[in-house]
Amino acid sequence: MASTWGDDPVSRDLTIIDVRLTPILVADPPLLNTQGVHQPYTPRLIVEVVTAEGITGVGETYGDTTYLDLARPLAEKLKGRQLTALNGLFTLADRVAVDASQVSDAVDVGGLRGVQTADKLRLSVVSGFEVACLDALGKALGLPVHALLGGRLRDAVEYSAYLFYKWESHPEGVICEPDDWGAALDPEGVVAQARRFTERHGFTSFKLKGGVFPPEEEIAAVRALAEAFPGHPLRLDPNGAWSVPTSLKVAEELRDLLEYLEDPTLGTPAMAEVAARAGVPLATNMCVTTFAEIEEAFTRGAVQVVLSDHHYWGGLRNTQHLAAICRTFDVGVSMHSNTHLGISLAAMTHVAATVPGLEHACDTHYPWQSEDVLTERIAFTGGRVAVSDAPGLGVELDRDKLAFLHRRWLDDDGALRDRDDAAAMRVADPDWVTPAVPRW
Amino acid sequence: MASTWGDDPVSRDLTIIDVRLTPILVADPPLLNTQGVHQPYTPRLIVEVVTAEGITGVGETYGDTTYLDLARPLAEKLKGRQLTALNGLFTLADRVAVDASQVSDAVDVGGLRGVQTADKLRLSVVSGFEVACLDALGKALGLPVHALLGGRLRDAVEYSAYLFYKWESHPEGVICEPDDWGAALDPEGVVAQARRFTERHGFTSFKLKGGVFPPEEEIAAVRALAEAFPGHPLRLDPNGAWSVPTSLKVAEELRDLLEYLEDPTLGTPAMAEVAARAGVPLATNMCVTTFAEIEEAFTRGAVQVVLSDHHYWGGLRNTQHLAAICRTFDVGVSMHSNTHLGISLAAMTHVAATVPGLEHACDTHYPWQSEDVLTERIAFTGGRVAVSDAPGLGVELDRDKLAFLHRRWLDDDGALRDRDDAAAMRVADPDWVTPAVPRW
Repeated sequence: MASTWGDDPVSRDLTIIDVRLTPILVADPPLLNTQGVHQPYTPRLIVEVVTAEGITGVGETYGDTTYLDLARPLAEKLKGRQLTALNGLFTLADRVAVDASQVSDAVDVGGLRGVQTADKLRLSVVSGFEVACLDALGKALGLPVHALLGGRLRDAVEYSAYLFYKWESHPEGVICEPDDWGAALDPEGVVAQARRFTERHGFTSFKLKGGVFPPEEEIAAVRALAEAFPGHPLRLDPNGAWSVPTSLKVAEELRDLLEYLEDPTLGTPAMAEVAARAGVPLATNMCVTTFAEIEEAFTRGAVQVVLSDHHYWGGLRNTQHLAAICRTFDVGVSMHSNTHLGISLAAMTHVAATVPGLEHACDTHYPWQSEDVLTERIAFTGGRVAVSDAPGLGVELDRDKLAFLHRRWLDDDGALRDRDDAAAMRVADPDWVTPAVPRW
Repeated sequence: MASTWGDDPVSRDLTIIDVRLTPILVADPPLLNTQGVHQPYTPRLIVEVVTAEGITGVGETYGDTTYLDLARPLAEKLKGRQLTALNGLFTLADRVAVDASQVSDAVDVGGLRGVQTADKLRLSVVSGFEVACLDALGKALGLPVHALLGGRLRDAVEYSAYLFYKWESHPEGVICEPDDWGAALDPEGVVAQARRFTERHGFTSFKLKGGVFPPEEEIAAVRALAEAFPGHPLRLDPNGAWSVPTSLKVAEELRDLLEYLEDPTLGTPAMAEVAARAGVPLATNMCVTTFAEIEEAFTRGAVQVVLSDHHYWGGLRNTQHLAAICRTFDVGVSMHSNTHLGISLAAMTHVAATVPGLEHACDTHYPWQSEDVLTERIAFTGGRVAVSDAPGLGVELDRDKLAFLHRRWLDDDGALRDRDDAAAMRVADPDWVTPAVPRW
């Protein structure tokens, strides 16, 4: 029963003939976290694959230098391949990394994205290409991306309001557009921000990015949210800023109010210690961010909810594998978000729609991004994004907007090529150093 | 970004308008195992889904009564649905089972197919429908099934020669076609059978179905194989017939000759005990046959290779999930086989081609089946099946052959509706009872 592509009556030519990579800088509000503050602009990479028939698919991933350095040779290798050859992307990326050998296997556990390994870097780059291929494939076949993933189980995906402590504006001297969210530096500010989220987008779940102020202040903010929104799911995420005793103390105070506590402390052993006595589920996007971290974390009971992220995990199909692993080990699954645009929100929505037992609202930074590369922004209705049944992702690239954001990246002259929240904080506070962990 | 099917410029109508179920009886040689002997005929179920455009996809699964009873209402529910709605098949099957309530949740650990639960029965039925949908979808889109699974990683899949102790013919009085394999009841007979396998199909890996004779006789057979085929991968599978001490004794004798020892004993605790001291990897298709069995088996180190089976696990996409779980826990993966025809061999080949790190040859009964429902038998070359790049599975149903085997099922008048190896053995030995386990 053997034959080769081309002998058969394949109705469409799915050969990739071109891959375009467009690094951009996207405006970002001064959102605070335990490492510092968001820079005025965040680098992202927009991936376009073009088929022999002129169909274009789009993807999106991190735009920092190390990601670009890996994406460029991978883009070259993609030309001439089939859109459908998704399983092969991983070995292709491995080969590129070896060829380029610019990626060390160094491990850095301090970043907000969890452990940083060469493998994870490769997966994050692959994810942008995988999504672009799925978008193009869907367009070529007349199928939505969710149908390429086995079909949707729901017609809308719920997202949570991602609350941040924030300044009113970036530090004086930083030239950028002001945002209209105002400051949020205490419980009242956090509740006001949450109200704005519900008014604008209808969100009913709330997540507060913590690790910014001493735990008692953040406990007070969660209490204020619980009072303002009784019965609504609440989460607190200090990005591993706390010690085990501090984590347990916060858990004791908030366990009746929280849906889950996210990454209170760093590393599987510490998370396992907290999980054993917290009395509230622990979620993570720092402790379990690669397949290699799963076995220890699951067998030690360190996490009860994994916040998947198709960028970290190598795409939408790997996200489905991760969800299957979580189901098998009776661990919940939801979705993490770093700063991202509408392409990734569409991708997140398609895959989330296919995952059985998705019982927690997904995270998204999208409401914080005033800029996008789409002709039409994706809307939240009642905190939900409707699952598109249009071919591909169901989004359209706005080339003028893409060119504008790319020009900003070009004009920036190398000053802002990598996300660095500590550097941004030093603009306001020259003495700032990334706090040692645990901070409290 | 929401819309509904039908509003969009979907190029093909993928609506299922008809589902045909054809139970058949397939000739089976008198292959021996620890429970008895294969009956002269085995029931299988051929599933056909037909789209609005008249495209037909084929699938195959177990044909025993309990499977048919679940497949019939599921077939009705499939009409009007989209071919792409594969994730929804599982909830649909759950609902059908509840509606029909003919499937008890009784657990029976004695069978050759591992634990028998209502959930596993549902998954086995779903697998036949999933494969049929993927075949039709591939035909509609001009894509091979492997491309719908993310693309093949290899152009051929290796299979092992599945050696059985066997009689020359079924017991006197049983009316059926004789086979041309001859008897194999001692080491010489097993080696002669293995030689015939290599001559006919080029296999280079060998698996002996054990649990038939006392362990020392089967050890002698493996030694004879090792002498006849030095350096070739060998496996022995007594289907859980041994106690822990017997398993360890066999492992000690054969550990230098075996690629792995398969299901020496029954149940995770006993397998874990053997695995800890065997000095040879343990493979299984009896201890881990459902997602629910994975956690205990993996955390206890009871198995080193899971023999997946897309029938048990609910289809080709679940097989990919299983493989991802195995990779994550550093457990090997290969493929199990019960009596099956060419449709399932094609499905096994497509999914096996997409699984990274498939390092062991897959099992297949196909060479033992002189009958099939395809216009052309699938060929083994050098023990391998070439991965088809034709649309769908790349196989064509022979309606005359299907009708012939269905007529046999109809004419059989209910006498042979369920596989029962002990009943078949009683024809030759009226005193035979299914041996208690462990048998040795």
